[in-house]
Amino acid sequence: MIYFNCDYTEGAHPRILEKLMETNFDQTIGYGMDEHCEKARDYIKKACKSEHADVHFLVGGTQTNVTVIDAALKAYQGVICAESGHINVHETGAVEACGHKCITIPSTDGKIYEPEVREILSTHFANGGDEHMAQPKMVYISNPTELGTIYSKAELKGLYELCKEYGAYLFLDGARLGYGLMCKANDLTLSDIAEYTDVFYIGGTKVGALFGEAVVITNNELKPDFRYNIKQHGGMLAKGRLLGIQFETLFEDGLYFDVAAHAMNMAEKIREKLTEFGAEFTVASPSNQIFVSLPNTVVEELSKKYVLEPWGKVDENHFAMRICTSWATKEENVDALLSDMERVLL
Amino acid sequence: MIYFNCDYTEGAHPRILEKLMETNFDQTIGYGMDEHCEKARDYIKKACKSEHADVHFLVGGTQTNVTVIDAALKAYQGVICAESGHINVHETGAVEACGHKCITIPSTDGKIYEPEVREILSTHFANGGDEHMAQPKMVYISNPTELGTIYSKAELKGLYELCKEYGAYLFLDGARLGYGLMCKANDLTLSDIAEYTDVFYIGGTKVGALFGEAVVITNNELKPDFRYNIKQHGGMLAKGRLLGIQFETLFEDGLYFDVAAHAMNMAEKIREKLTEFGAEFTVASPSNQIFVSLPNTVVEELSKKYVLEPWGKVDENHFAMRICTSWATKEENVDALLSDMERVLL
Amino acid sequence: MIYFNCDYTEGAHPRILEKLMETNFDQTIGYGMDEHCEKARDYIKKACKSEHADVHFLVGGTQTNVTVIDAALKAYQGVICAESGHINVHETGAVEACGHKCITIPSTDGKIYEPEVREILSTHFANGGDEHMAQPKMVYISNPTELGTIYSKAELKGLYELCKEYGAYLFLDGARLGYGLMCKANDLTLSDIAEYTDVFYIGGTKVGALFGEAVVITNNELKPDFRYNIKQHGGMLAKGRLLGIQFETLFEDGLYFDVAAHAMNMAEKIREKLTEFGAEFTVASPSNQIFVSLPNTVVEELSKKYVLEPWGKVDENHFAMRICTSWATKEENVDALLSDMERVLL
Amino acid sequence: MIYFNCDYTEGAHPRILEKLMETNFDQTIGYGMDEHCEKARDYIKKACKSEHADVHFLVGGTQTNVTVIDAALKAYQGVICAESGHINVHETGAVEACGHKCITIPSTDGKIYEPEVREILSTHFANGGDEHMAQPKMVYISNPTELGTIYSKAELKGLYELCKEYGAYLFLDGARLGYGLMCKANDLTLSDIAEYTDVFYIGGTKVGALFGEAVVITNNELKPDFRYNIKQHGGMLAKGRLLGIQFETLFEDGLYFDVAAHAMNMAEKIREKLTEFGAEFTVASPSNQIFVSLPNTVVEELSKKYVLEPWGKVDENHFAMRICTSWATKEENVDALLSDMERVLL
Repeated sequence: MIYFNCDYTEGAHPRILEKLMETNFDQTIGYGMDEHCEKARDYIKKACKSEHADVHFLVGGTQTNVTVIDAALKAYQGVICAESGHINVHETGAVEACGHKCITIPSTDGKIYEPEVREILSTHFANGGDEHMAQPKMVYISNPTELGTIYSKAELKGLYELCKEYGAYLFLDGARLGYGLMCKANDLTLSDIAEYTDVFYIGGTKVGALFGEAVVITNNELKPDFRYNIKQHGGMLAKGRLLGIQFETLFEDGLYFDVAAHAMNMAEKIREKLTEFGAEFTVASPSNQIFVSLPNTVVEELSKKYVLEPWGKVDENHFAMRICTSWATKEENVDALLSDMERVLL
Repeated sequence: MIYFNCDYTEGAHPRILEKLMETNFDQTIGYGMDEHCEKARDYIKKACKSEHADVHFLVGGTQTNVTVIDAALKAYQGVICAESGHINVHETGAVEACGHKCITIPSTDGKIYEPEVREILSTHFANGGDEHMAQPKMVYISNPTELGTIYSKAELKGLYELCKEYGAYLFLDGARLGYGLMCKANDLTLSDIAEYTDVFYIGGTKVGALFGEAVVITNNELKPDFRYNIKQHGGMLAKGRLLGIQFETLFEDGLYFDVAAHAMNMAEKIREKLTEFGAEFTVASPSNQIFVSLPNTVVEELSKKYVLEPWGKVDENHFAMRICTSWATKEENVDALLSDMERVLL
Repeated sequence: MIYFNCDYTEGAHPRILEKLMETNFDQTIGYGMDEHCEKARDYIKKACKSEHADVHFLVGGTQTNVTVIDAALKAYQGVICAESGHINVHETGAVEACGHKCITIPSTDGKIYEPEVREILSTHFANGGDEHMAQPKMVYISNPTELGTIYSKAELKGLYELCKEYGAYLFLDGARLGYGLMCKANDLTLSDIAEYTDVFYIGGTKVGALFGEAVVITNNELKPDFRYNIKQHGGMLAKGRLLGIQFETLFEDGLYFDVAAHAMNMAEKIREKLTEFGAEFTVASPSNQIFVSLPNTVVEELSKKYVLEPWGKVDENHFAMRICTSWATKEENVDALLSDMERVLL
Repeated sequence: MIYFNCDYTEGAHPRILEKLMETNFDQTIGYGMDEHCEKARDYIKKACKSEHADVHFLVGGTQTNVTVIDAALKAYQGVICAESGHINVHETGAVEACGHKCITIPSTDGKIYEPEVREILSTHFANGGDEHMAQPKMVYISNPTELGTIYSKAELKGLYELCKEYGAYLFLDGARLGYGLMCKANDLTLSDIAEYTDVFYIGGTKVGALFGEAVVITNNELKPDFRYNIKQHGGMLAKGRLLGIQFETLFEDGLYFDVAAHAMNMAEKIREKLTEFGAEFTVASPSNQIFVSLPNTVVEELSKKYVLEPWGKVDENHFAMRICTSWATKEENVDALLSDMERVLL
């Protein structure tokens, strides 16, 4: 079987494994204070043009979301997010398990927009704050979103300025950030993101690493004692160097962007062909996730050879399927898929 | 000013204060194990025709909701409720603060219905349960709801049977239960509620008591160690007899129902007159909360003498106002309000 | 049976009940914003000579402890307390349920002292803070303690200054504060306590009220959004006036101190007689709790008529018993107890 | 510098890295449901002679402790442990952050014994359970402990039987389990541990793996929905195969035991020499952690070339140092250390 269902079906970029091999018997101190982590932090701060940022490495996405949110919020504060947001749907209530409410906004494209967020903030704080409700103190977005859509620079800046108006934090979940940054429709840079958020992270798990997420904190209010939060949430890896080595490799010479660009090339190739085939996209996603409506017969036929992700029924005869590319996607597999699709679709 | 904005603007039924006076220097043991609590428990079990139920007394509604929900759910489980549910909106995220997600269903009348609840349960458990999502283990409803609407016996039974199908608990918040039971449209009895829920409570705070909610647990799974939960949530009153005395007084001879009936008579009187006046109700509520759309000029005029609760803008010229009656509502005040309304509305 | 086992066996001072009667049908707004609460706040601020303090009313002790601690601490911070502290032993892990560790100090007299507290703080912050451990950010004491002992002004000042040195908060649980203030050995005033703590509370439940604790916050860092914390922890009484009326009555003309003084007179009378009888005290408590070692035969004999609180075995032939007086203790009952003790002890 | 300060200064056994390389571009499904995880589970169940056990893989120790404890306990339940237990001291209050109290027993050797545990359980449940206290429902031990000491089979069995008597769970933290099993003084087997605990884990991070802990659940009560707990606590690795591959490699032919045996040989060599040198051990530890009192001058001299872990002042002239060996310890480094010690100690 050939997997296109998600972007974490392979290991890591070979250069990462080589570096792990090479350094395997070096002795280092633990918990992220080793020299690989130091170097990786420096590379990332440079890439973000944000020398005063704090950079921390965590293991996975849910852990990172929860750690950042719990570090930022007091017990009675909540986080605004899309109803479809990862924290609201796919983290087994981890944010709530730390005591915080997800204050949701319905969304069809995975994004949330300034007017709806403003409505929540302005209503809550109309008379100095309504203590009978969870206080909205953070806005969570992901870029790309769960549906592969991305924020423009203007949108991000708008949300950030709104947050500043109400004393809220803007947090960007970048589990798939590389793919967002390298997609054609994108007008954001890493340094824009560092400028227009209070905290964000650069996903490694889905973009070339074995695992790992790099949290970048630019707001000074969120910096103190962050390592306590990491430790308490079980995210402080004893052999922290494993994270350092991975991000060092990904950021020392732009490998992160290169592997993401590859994924985007593969996605574009698929998207173009599907457009040619007359297929309908259920979401207008410009990044590495493609949501396409396929006849049930086609879905069945393809499932003999490929694993795509079922995303929901469209109508009696069609099903929406998610096709993901990644840093590891082989062009020969893409070609095979497209050729098979051509055969069954046309 | 005359208050019609809510149902907790006065103290308690005089018989309760008299009983407190009378027993004031009696010495009793603490924490709800005294003889007044014992008697009150017996009266309530009889009223529910549920001799095997466990009955506990807590101080207030938020505390009771949180205690019941936290007692019933494991760390990864959530509670299904209306988006407008009290636990979701007006408890400052207390349920989440105990670690549990509110899994919400949009609602215009404050109620949730079997199909939407089934959708959530069946989707979650389709393949044995999706561990990436909070597990729906409880359904929370209130009767009357936040919008004064009530459940029919058939609806309650339907929800209960659905819950049993999926191993979930049905919890009914009865903060205003008396008013629900005594309203004309109601076909539920206390014993129906005991039969078709796993746990519910009988609100005292809004129905004749100074404060206090009586939790009735009929599902054996929820009974063990419930007092640990009360204590941990700060709900175990040292002088537990204060709760015992109040519920003893309310239930020894049906006072609870009598005072609720009075509130409903007053509400009916208002509702009828408003109908006569041609006023539009924004919610078709049959209980002690009346939601009526009034011209802004009328709202302003009435506000000189009465406190009504602003509930939301209807259009440029109208505002929805909530008018509440209670056990303590004086008929002369109702008459004054209606007479003033007649003057300004007609 | 005559109860001396604890200080919450009766209702409330009659003047409180009278005031409740008198105001019963007044209509007031809810949640502690009514005029009785306002007045009570003013009286208390004056009694504390602390006009800039924030005063809030909660229902019970556990709830108050948890609310204050949770409001003050971030997720990774803990509270230093005596191993015997109420929060560590008798609140069903409520502080932990809100996510915070009790960092304990062994104690034989219920108090904690500057050197042990300093040891914890200085060790933790030796190298800027050890993120593998819960960060000690608050010191919790009770006055009187669980064992009836009290802090001197010098001790309180010492702890407070130590806290300031390390950026920690000092929180004083005053569930029995009245008895501490009125006992002969005491050299603290309410205003000393306001000066040398960051937050404390004045207990009503055990000192003349039906229920209620008045939290006094003097540290500005702890003031913002405190009402969100009260609400989330289920402590915001709908009919907040019930608390306002009680504290208004207790503090408008010093009733709080008068009723506490009565309890202390009764305690002194017992203590003196027991000393005469040659009884041994297991704790040198100067306040309303008396811990005395009694021969098992005496315990048995007294138990026919009196309820004392068993506190622990002393040796094969003796058991330590707690005898409590309170605002409600009748002198005739004290005399009866002492006369019966004289009979069986001598 | 040569590090002897802890047992996680290197990467992983080379066979693990090779296997990661070899499988790197295989496509597998995520979240621990791949075939490597399946195989690893089978190997471990065989090694434990416990075919009905559930085996789960998590990333690190703190995360594993918290996940297991939170999965097993209800909101009001606590876990008994040594005061020096890792969960009580070195996890930044993670157990409390999930709402559970650590009920501690003072310990000088890192172990807890049946009488003290019985005291807590029997006291709590004396009258059916004291709801004012956190309910002790689990006993947590580590083997080896924080101080390198180990439990005998008789001790483990005794604790387990005590737990069964009171309906409590026995949980063994095996972060260093390999070293415990392979030390000379040990009389426990993996299958004994599976038999006399309800849940335990086999540490990989410190015993040959890059990271990873294998949880073995034998008690059926603890099995349902465990994956929800893993996910909620951020422990469900997207590329779960990384854990599967590591444990597959460690358990397919006994590598886990071999590498642990090597560490123990190195530790024995050091221990014997130190004994010869007349050094005093501050703890009688039989496993891979050696606690030795060294003259300050010796500590200083050694620190030029070696990193040992300072463990606490012994007296004015001596300091206790921890020396750790591990699967990766090179005999040449041990020899160098011993030779340098000989020089400075004798």
